[in-house]
Amino acid sequence: MTFPVVGMVGGGQLARMTHEAGIPLGIKFKLLSDTPQDSAAQVVGDVVVGDYRDLDTLRSFARGCDVITFDHEHVPTEHLRALEADGIPVRPGPDALVHAQDKGVMRERLTAIGVPCPRHRIVRDPADVAAFAAEGAEGAPGDGFPVVLKTVRGGYDGKGVWVVRSAAEAAEPFKAGVPVLAEEKVDFARELAANVVRSPHGQAVAYPVVESIQVDGVCDTVIAPAPGLDENAAVRAQELALTVAHELGVVGHLAVELFETKDGRVLVNELAMRPHNSGHWTQDGAVTSQFANHVRAVLDLPLGDPRPRAPWTVMANVLGGDYPDMYAAYLHCMARDPQLKIHMYGKDVKPGRKVGHVNTYGDDLADVRERAAHAAGYLRGTITE
Amino acid sequence: MTFPVVGMVGGGQLARMTHEAGIPLGIKFKLLSDTPQDSAAQVVGDVVVGDYRDLDTLRSFARGCDVITFDHEHVPTEHLRALEADGIPVRPGPDALVHAQDKGVMRERLTAIGVPCPRHRIVRDPADVAAFAAEGAEGAPGDGFPVVLKTVRGGYDGKGVWVVRSAAEAAEPFKAGVPVLAEEKVDFARELAANVVRSPHGQAVAYPVVESIQVDGVCDTVIAPAPGLDENAAVRAQELALTVAHELGVVGHLAVELFETKDGRVLVNELAMRPHNSGHWTQDGAVTSQFANHVRAVLDLPLGDPRPRAPWTVMANVLGGDYPDMYAAYLHCMARDPQLKIHMYGKDVKPGRKVGHVNTYGDDLADVRERAAHAAGYLRGTITE
Repeated sequence: MTFPVVGMVGGGQLARMTHEAGIPLGIKFKLLSDTPQDSAAQVVGDVVVGDYRDLDTLRSFARGCDVITFDHEHVPTEHLRALEADGIPVRPGPDALVHAQDKGVMRERLTAIGVPCPRHRIVRDPADVAAFAAEGAEGAPGDGFPVVLKTVRGGYDGKGVWVVRSAAEAAEPFKAGVPVLAEEKVDFARELAANVVRSPHGQAVAYPVVESIQVDGVCDTVIAPAPGLDENAAVRAQELALTVAHELGVVGHLAVELFETKDGRVLVNELAMRPHNSGHWTQDGAVTSQFANHVRAVLDLPLGDPRPRAPWTVMANVLGGDYPDMYAAYLHCMARDPQLKIHMYGKDVKPGRKVGHVNTYGDDLADVRERAAHAAGYLRGTITE
Repeated sequence: MTFPVVGMVGGGQLARMTHEAGIPLGIKFKLLSDTPQDSAAQVVGDVVVGDYRDLDTLRSFARGCDVITFDHEHVPTEHLRALEADGIPVRPGPDALVHAQDKGVMRERLTAIGVPCPRHRIVRDPADVAAFAAEGAEGAPGDGFPVVLKTVRGGYDGKGVWVVRSAAEAAEPFKAGVPVLAEEKVDFARELAANVVRSPHGQAVAYPVVESIQVDGVCDTVIAPAPGLDENAAVRAQELALTVAHELGVVGHLAVELFETKDGRVLVNELAMRPHNSGHWTQDGAVTSQFANHVRAVLDLPLGDPRPRAPWTVMANVLGGDYPDMYAAYLHCMARDPQLKIHMYGKDVKPGRKVGHVNTYGDDLADVRERAAHAAGYLRGTITE
């Protein structure tokens, strides 16, 4: 059979779960991993250990792959262009991916296509941060602070993001020498995510819009669908994500993280062009998971049905706690809830590190949430009974 | 984390799908495969290529495994005992597995524990086959033929099985020099399968009883649950399978293939002590798949919920047809039915070879069956529109 080979750059849990989804599809998987111990490298047969920042390594890896895709957004844009010039399909391509790599480029482009974003601009120094704050304070009480500062490249899970209350607090973000984006701190009601998948021939599917609950800047819980979100608002958020995917030429999974304001508007927070934590619920809660649809999209195969299989699905991240060995807790969780779906990443436990997630589903949201929260808490060690 | 390593002997599709199910569980998987091209060897990271019939190879493979389990029943019993003597847990153990390896031992044991089986006995030669037939013909019309002859070891998918209509036809089975079991040819209404999973500490779960439709001695379609099977009969079949698992000390997945007679009784046809084709529907149709529960059982972890997720799930095997390249047909099937779940094994296409299966599920059995049959037929090339 001439089934294709997908080359995945990056050995994290997203690559691990994409490989898992590729097995039933009969898709061969080749991995470029930083180390042989990385999450995905433990479970993939064809692993190349190497540095994705090195073009020769990438080129050598790409030989024998029918398409290249990614576990993360960190591959330099110029390397992706070089692979494309070599004739290797890169999906998502560099012209799309730059919007997930550079928050400044993303804000400029989304604003140009009329997608609502928080007020923002690139700032030069702490004094310019104060000026940005003052611009927001015009005609309103206060001094315009707090302001959110982000390095335009390199941040994730709250890293590379600062909330400052004065110009005096604004020195740190400039130290890295990377351009800094200032954004208004949106007084949001909650965070949502609209996940879509788009293929090169332009087919696209939209998953139900979910609510994403962050704790200390890290995703803690995702509820699918977002409770109480009215149908029109949900459709508008899906349309917004489909528009972004189309306008930016995204291929594969696109997560659009959104702020829902207290007056019911949505503003785009972040974009991710790969399977995303806000879509992990789809493994057990949707007809086709985000991982399977990502594989199908990058291969330009017809996409699978994104519809939910249960009225409610809840995902809770499992963070590392104080105990390095989770196996006893894992056994307990399986015994307590035979319907629990556990997804472990094979990573060493470190406090606060994402080492897995659990999915629960059912008809009663309170029950489904309790089961997910209990399992995640028990695995972390914050719940002991 | 001290997550265990499961050693899987055999590189076929059952090993491939068990590895897939082990990834979210965080279970490390080590494979002993005949070749690097075997179905599972393509997708597992830690592969040893070697001959399972060689004890030194098995012993070397088993070092570093926390438990050994199987893709097939062909490992010699004495080798399994040697591994156990080395202190390696073997699950299912040799005392249980012999009942899936040797049809003579199986019939003797099931009869001893009162499990209904077709009339049977070991036969010495064609004349003894005629005597066996005559014993069945007492007080009934006819000569007692046809009779089913099976070599007690080594058969699968219709191989090692003959249906003979006279002593003159009965020479072939004796040529292999393996003991031959004669059985009455049961005039069954249909074939069922009762699948259960049992763990070393004695926990067991029973999946819904399914109907299995064979074509030319090979499983073609499985319908879960078996249509029209009354609830008492289903519970009795589940109890029978649980009894077999308990009495034989099975650990892991046990498939009990059954004949349903025209007067509503069930007789045991075959046993398999590993994930089984009649349980493939559970991947998309049950809360916990047979593969995940097999992994959980062999590690003595609490078992997952075996209940169905949809009113009807249908599995159809994809056999190789005349066209070696299925990719175009695969694309067509995905486009036709976005809810279709395709499971490809990465095997070269040969006419009649099982190279994958499809699962469909839903509320309307006729629709669910049509979708599965269409996809399987289209992939094989027997349906072209």
